[in-house]
Amino acid sequence: MPIIECVPNISEGRRSNMVARIVDAVRRVPGIRLLDYSSDASHNRSVITMAGEAAPLKAAVLALFEAALPTIDLRTHQGEHPRVGAVDVVPFVPIEGVTMDDCIALAKETARNVAEQFSVPVYLYEEASSNPLRKNLEDIRRGEFEGLTSKMATDGWLPDYGPSTPHATAGAAVIGARMPLIAYNINLATDRLEVARKIAAAIRFSSGGFRYVKAMGVRLAERNIVQVSINLTNYEKTPILRVFEAVKREAAHYGVIVLESEIVGLVPSAALADVAVTALQLTQFTRDQVLETRLRASADEVEKLKSKPDP
Amino acid sequence: MPIIECVPNISEGRRSNMVARIVDAVRRVPGIRLLDYSSDASHNRSVITMAGEAAPLKAAVLALFEAALPTIDLRTHQGEHPRVGAVDVVPFVPIEGVTMDDCIALAKETARNVAEQFSVPVYLYEEASSNPLRKNLEDIRRGEFEGLTSKMATDGWLPDYGPSTPHATAGAAVIGARMPLIAYNINLATDRLEVARKIAAAIRFSSGGFRYVKAMGVRLAERNIVQVSINLTNYEKTPILRVFEAVKREAAHYGVIVLESEIVGLVPSAALADVAVTALQLTQFTRDQVLETRLRASADEVEKLKSKPDP
Repeated sequence: MPIIECVPNISEGRRSNMVARIVDAVRRVPGIRLLDYSSDASHNRSVITMAGEAAPLKAAVLALFEAALPTIDLRTHQGEHPRVGAVDVVPFVPIEGVTMDDCIALAKETARNVAEQFSVPVYLYEEASSNPLRKNLEDIRRGEFEGLTSKMATDGWLPDYGPSTPHATAGAAVIGARMPLIAYNINLATDRLEVARKIAAAIRFSSGGFRYVKAMGVRLAERNIVQVSINLTNYEKTPILRVFEAVKREAAHYGVIVLESEIVGLVPSAALADVAVTALQLTQFTRDQVLETRLRASADEVEKLKSKPDP
Repeated sequence: MPIIECVPNISEGRRSNMVARIVDAVRRVPGIRLLDYSSDASHNRSVITMAGEAAPLKAAVLALFEAALPTIDLRTHQGEHPRVGAVDVVPFVPIEGVTMDDCIALAKETARNVAEQFSVPVYLYEEASSNPLRKNLEDIRRGEFEGLTSKMATDGWLPDYGPSTPHATAGAAVIGARMPLIAYNINLATDRLEVARKIAAAIRFSSGGFRYVKAMGVRLAERNIVQVSINLTNYEKTPILRVFEAVKREAAHYGVIVLESEIVGLVPSAALADVAVTALQLTQFTRDQVLETRLRASADEVEKLKSKPDP
């Protein structure tokens, strides 16, 4: 069974009863598995994580817009996190048995439906956008809700679907396809914030580092140490272990030791398997050698694997 | 849903139609998922890998004895691999949502049923055996089918279940519980067999190495290199990465480089995740952070995980 993940971000993170009602609308869609949701009050934003096949996911996103639009009004919305829409960002993520192309097709179809049913203009982003200037979420979000009218009138910024002016209360939506995102932090045995900042600058794409790394240096005041806080946006092309080892080497240049690292939230098992493959110099390893993968495979997919007699 | 793996080894690896018929008897048991089976003609032995819950697995093992006993006669059986029985070894392995104690209980109940229904004497082994002298399969198997009559008459070698003399054609069976076994090979960039042999001796339990490692040095003639061929019998207590790093260090003492390693057959995803946890110095990592584990969890197990907004 193909599995796609979808992680909508909505611009409501304070009125928990409203968030619960919106999440319920999604949960009720047949074929949808709700994996997680969490709200951030200072961001005034909630993140919903769900999974399913293409058709139920499209239905769930439409149900999400239907529930969110009457209750979220961006004209009065305030929060630390930048946003352009009531339903702000909707990424589709290939997990199992689907390709990135499948997710791109789903993003486009969902975007067209959202525009038609709710008169909300939609920008495609990341892999779903064919315009190189409109792949990056930060670029699309620049100017936020308040700047949308002038932005849409600017050359090259007509939305991909729907009206050419923002929805009065819901602004615009950004819908696309991307690889699973891994939130990954590396803690340093020092209280020198400038070390974490310099290492973050060394590894992130925007200042000359790895293509699929976003990073910043932050202080963990309660522990009196600093942290390189990282988003890995494509673990296949910029693997976790490579980033960890780069941070270790950079830290050594400042006489600093890496204390530990941590994965925040969920991580695809393939990303962990990749670490093992590199660390063990594993050769000829395939995903169907993972016992749990085999357990989930249908019985007629059982092939003859080389097994050693016991023992 | 709890998952137990069961990996019976039967003493028939040449008459493929017989093997297929025996495997079919197992496959037909409701609730059984057949994961793999393979035969080795020189060993004259087949390994069947299946999974399920306790009750179907017990039924499948009884079906296996019923199908195997009329067709396998150890009085005429020949093969390179040591064996004491027609159905030779039956290990139960905890995979998901079950404890080792569950598997031990299942092994004992299955052993009692096998003895009662087929008059085959059964030795318990590994975790299911409470006698420290009768945990090790090699010790139980020593003397093979041909030596069973005198072995059973020896002090301390009365079978755990069933008659005190071997079954005329089926010998005895060895039934028990153990951790998943990982077949793991490390290839060295040298043709010096004595280096692989010395490293194998350094890491294996029997000659002073790690508690849960069996190893030998072998030559890969077609590639003109040598290999340390390893069975890891408990990856939680003797982890893969620790063994790999030990082999690397030992090899360095002989001026030899590790070329690569390989996992033969199946590996539990937890064993790969453990490698990642160590290699990345991951802290506070739990199994339910693996996306696929979460996907399989039932909807009401969804808790709030800390998620970063996107991105």
